[in-house]
Amino acid sequence: MTTALPLERTYAERLDASDPLAKFRDKFAWPDDPSLIYLDGNSLGPLPLATQARIAEVVGRQWGHGQVRSWHRWVGLPREVGDLIGRHLIGAAPGQVLVSDSTTVNLFKLANAALDAKPGRRVMVTDDDNFPTDRYVLAGIAAQRDCELRMIHSDIDLGASEEALLAALDQDVALVSLSHVAYRSGAIADMPRITKLVHDAGALMLWDLCHSVGTVPIELDASGADLAIGCTYKYLNAGPGSPAFLYVREELTDKLSQPVWGWFGQKNQFAMGPSYDPAPGIEHFAAGTPSIIGTVAVEEGTKLLAEAGIDRLRAKGIALTSYLIHLADEWLAPHGFRLASPREDARRGNHVTLYHRDAWRVSQALIAAGVIGDYRTPDRLRLGPVPIATRFVDVWDALDRLRQIAADETYKNLPAEVSRVT
Amino acid sequence: MTTALPLERTYAERLDASDPLAKFRDKFAWPDDPSLIYLDGNSLGPLPLATQARIAEVVGRQWGHGQVRSWHRWVGLPREVGDLIGRHLIGAAPGQVLVSDSTTVNLFKLANAALDAKPGRRVMVTDDDNFPTDRYVLAGIAAQRDCELRMIHSDIDLGASEEALLAALDQDVALVSLSHVAYRSGAIADMPRITKLVHDAGALMLWDLCHSVGTVPIELDASGADLAIGCTYKYLNAGPGSPAFLYVREELTDKLSQPVWGWFGQKNQFAMGPSYDPAPGIEHFAAGTPSIIGTVAVEEGTKLLAEAGIDRLRAKGIALTSYLIHLADEWLAPHGFRLASPREDARRGNHVTLYHRDAWRVSQALIAAGVIGDYRTPDRLRLGPVPIATRFVDVWDALDRLRQIAADETYKNLPAEVSRVT
Repeated sequence: MTTALPLERTYAERLDASDPLAKFRDKFAWPDDPSLIYLDGNSLGPLPLATQARIAEVVGRQWGHGQVRSWHRWVGLPREVGDLIGRHLIGAAPGQVLVSDSTTVNLFKLANAALDAKPGRRVMVTDDDNFPTDRYVLAGIAAQRDCELRMIHSDIDLGASEEALLAALDQDVALVSLSHVAYRSGAIADMPRITKLVHDAGALMLWDLCHSVGTVPIELDASGADLAIGCTYKYLNAGPGSPAFLYVREELTDKLSQPVWGWFGQKNQFAMGPSYDPAPGIEHFAAGTPSIIGTVAVEEGTKLLAEAGIDRLRAKGIALTSYLIHLADEWLAPHGFRLASPREDARRGNHVTLYHRDAWRVSQALIAAGVIGDYRTPDRLRLGPVPIATRFVDVWDALDRLRQIAADETYKNLPAEVSRVT
Repeated sequence: MTTALPLERTYAERLDASDPLAKFRDKFAWPDDPSLIYLDGNSLGPLPLATQARIAEVVGRQWGHGQVRSWHRWVGLPREVGDLIGRHLIGAAPGQVLVSDSTTVNLFKLANAALDAKPGRRVMVTDDDNFPTDRYVLAGIAAQRDCELRMIHSDIDLGASEEALLAALDQDVALVSLSHVAYRSGAIADMPRITKLVHDAGALMLWDLCHSVGTVPIELDASGADLAIGCTYKYLNAGPGSPAFLYVREELTDKLSQPVWGWFGQKNQFAMGPSYDPAPGIEHFAAGTPSIIGTVAVEEGTKLLAEAGIDRLRAKGIALTSYLIHLADEWLAPHGFRLASPREDARRGNHVTLYHRDAWRVSQALIAAGVIGDYRTPDRLRLGPVPIATRFVDVWDALDRLRQIAADETYKNLPAEVSRVT
């Protein structure tokens, strides 16, 4: 199936030499050991040097010296950085994106808002292989509101099918919530097409962009999507636990209300009035005081991606992952590995998942060999290059080490216990 | 009413010379201009140098070099730092405190949990001068759940009265939510006594500790409190928008459930199982991925307060604020200022509020004179020393500048518009 790419490392070197994004690698911090290879951009992106400097500035100068007087420059950031994400990464005109809270809390806010907006409808739809926090949050809301959470079956390698979705859609459905790129397989959902199916059924569509934003061009406005959420510690490279973002289509921002009525969502916040009077526009989807250090890290990460350009990032991501798949086909398939991501480039996000029956121990052996990848239950190895920073030789070296591990089978001596954190 | 303290600056200098916490001032960053005086610890605490170094370490080494492998040291932080706050600042045995989300989101989680725990009761009680986000969040929950939010009247200078509370308590009340120290007046509520009144009525008690934690000794376990929330960017000096904390009494941690079912509250989180199975203990009150940079800032801030000792911080806070009140009585009362905080030390938290009919313009003139205080609607000037770092000469100099402003009345030339941020 794959084209006959050369298998020599020199080919990877040539790809790097002609990579228009090659210069960006030096804009990031890397481990002291230069032989370490990082293929976990889908979990925690690397540290941009500009972010390190910006955090030092915000901490040392703005907080340390400016103290409370710096709030005048901080208070608008959640919306400004939201607009930046909107403009460069997710196809959203200004005033519809806000950096706020965690993905989990944002999903909670928007799913409740959607149910409130569709009072006669009491069903939410998601898929059974959606990211855990999405499934749990929606299940919690269903329990609290006496609603139904309708789970459509998702193929573990290929994502949710449109047929399954169509079968689940009826006049009781208020909201469909799906991931744009599936966290396990990396399968991309057809955003405009699915959004239209959902709208045809009279429901609202919410997209979780966690595993796509920053790597795959997204056109929220053009696709007709109603709502979206996404995280920033993966491909936006904003650091561990950095704040998430939410999107609400302009026509809906003033129609929807969210359940967490906090003072940062209040009109004339510092009048501290007697009752909640939501700010117009996207800002009433805020809740409490936003994390400023986290928000500036999102800003720096987004600026770097904007400089690289989402189309070039997507082209590089496809080149890296298709090369990875090619080497895996050639070198790993004979050792019990199987591609567990869509093979077609247009159907695949930025990470490649490989099935192996002993994936946990293989992933541990791979880490010991200096390749930071990712294990996913039950038997998957997930490799997520960082399009802005990963080299083709990194992919070659990682797969080369992996084929040695697969060949010598020493991973079989490792403990089988699963006790890790991503 | 006040004792006859000397009015000369030399007296303040003597107090500083004998201050056992004097050495802590050098553990913070300060503005370049040494004449600036910071009396806004009640809004945003100053930057501890240890926090600046720790953030640089976590960003540069742990994220930059350790990348995703550092999660093994991050994942336990919300609970570890929660226990640290519990042990040193709020009288909570381990396993009951978690650093998480914002104060707003934590109140939302715990108030919903309380209503679920009291199924026959449909009333929440708070006071009409509680901090805005508290009132708004509870009003939102009341609207969503078709419950009643019963507002008791609070004296703007003295806080909520026990009589008003008693009159509001009946068998329909599920939850009483009050601030331990009132944000406007600084009045302290009698935590053990009020908690008992609430328990006698069969309701749960939730304390907002935002304006007391770090300055006033708090004994949550001993007081019988059920639930508490608090922020860390004020007296815990953890930076703008740093994460908040929540407390759930041990007997209740496994009985209560909170509405935001996120993956960080899941038992065996990384098994990514099909359905939500809350982690035992305090951890199921978490929601999404926690802010790591924010959480280490809370840890450093708390360690510094622990080193100073909460009893010494309280003694210093009382000494600073009673001295401030003494000077205000002597110098400002003739110019239309009036104390708008409890005069009795034991009834007053760590900030002093002064009434002046033109408080907005006075506060602006004060900032122009190099004293960073705080305006609060409608006609209050709020001065919050930082017990671990403010000097007695700072109080003297601030009040001296304020009396000059009051005397020359040039503040009357300033615009009256209110458009500021805290």
